[in-house]
Amino acid sequence: MPHFSIEYSASLDDEIDVGVLCEVVRHAAVQTGIFPLGGIRVRAIRCAHFAIADGRAGLSFLDILLRIGEGRDLAVRQKAGDAIFQAVSQHLEPLFATGRFALSFDIQINDSATSWKRNAIHDMLKAETSHG
Amino acid sequence: MPHFSIEYSASLDDEIDVGVLCEVVRHAAVQTGIFPLGGIRVRAIRCAHFAIADGRAGLSFLDILLRIGEGRDLAVRQKAGDAIFQAVSQHLEPLFATGRFALSFDIQINDSATSWKRNAIHDMLKAETSHG
Amino acid sequence: MPHFSIEYSASLDDEIDVGVLCEVVRHAAVQTGIFPLGGIRVRAIRCAHFAIADGRAGLSFLDILLRIGEGRDLAVRQKAGDAIFQAVSQHLEPLFATGRFALSFDIQINDSATSWKRNAIHDMLKAETSHG
Repeated sequence: MPHFSIEYSASLDDEIDVGVLCEVVRHAAVQTGIFPLGGIRVRAIRCAHFAIADGRAGLSFLDILLRIGEGRDLAVRQKAGDAIFQAVSQHLEPLFATGRFALSFDIQINDSATSWKRNAIHDMLKAETSHG
Repeated sequence: MPHFSIEYSASLDDEIDVGVLCEVVRHAAVQTGIFPLGGIRVRAIRCAHFAIADGRAGLSFLDILLRIGEGRDLAVRQKAGDAIFQAVSQHLEPLFATGRFALSFDIQINDSATSWKRNAIHDMLKAETSHG
Repeated sequence: MPHFSIEYSASLDDEIDVGVLCEVVRHAAVQTGIFPLGGIRVRAIRCAHFAIADGRAGLSFLDILLRIGEGRDLAVRQKAGDAIFQAVSQHLEPLFATGRFALSFDIQINDSATSWKRNAIHDMLKAETSHG
């Protein structure tokens, strides 16, 4: 945790650099200060086929679903979510001016009773810090 | 909202037109009358690797996950879901005859307390309507 | 049900055989004995763009989200989840040794009140059993 899954319409291919966008989300997540660094995983999924609103061509969307573990109260989640959404929204500002773009962001909480993880990155980062 | 994410096995590549399927879902969503037109976002994700049932070759699936906002009671969601599922099921009727296809559809409700959106398409559609 | 959606970073392209991994998950699901064979659907989604931890290159992740129907108590879900996670974790053992890989697995339960399915594979399997 946390997992950011970004789904976007292929109509954005020529409009955004998806690798940069992933980095914007990752950086914003780090800046919230509420997530362990080694747990942050942002990824994007290109959707070649899509249909938006009234079905006309030329529309596009980008949707971010964040899944996190239990244990952070609502105020903390809202503050972090606000910050992440603002970072993405500002980064994509030019798209809104077209009137043909929709951005969305939702947070889900995983049930800790049925959650498993094994993450070697945490240990690697700790080893670097202590040796560094 | 609403977001329709369709995951399907690549074994359907020669069986269906995924763009047309997205349009079938979008049109069915519009017809329910319970969603704002500008918020409808349907997309499909092709899964190149998959394993179904007993693992034999030749099987296929299509799974639709719909995420919507809060505020619609269960009867409304069930009626809309029934209609959308029937539309997709009828569209894919030939696949069922093979005995090798499984269709599924689930609705999730996003937590409005941790949901963010910025949608320029709503305003564009309104402007078109008023300018007529 | 059940649906296994596996998202993984494209940095694993040269590290794992994703088709084999899907089969490992499918087989582990069958072995739990709690799922109807014809309902098992495992698929993997390659994420070409991603950003992990501190953003450095060379990191990778694989995340499995399992959605199942209602009706299995927590102990049953935990035992099945443990077994599936162990199978995947062991299969990917070499990746952990690099210190640059994170594996995760979560189970969600679909709301049966808004769940639709039509699955011809169940009937095909039954017909084979009775004729076999």
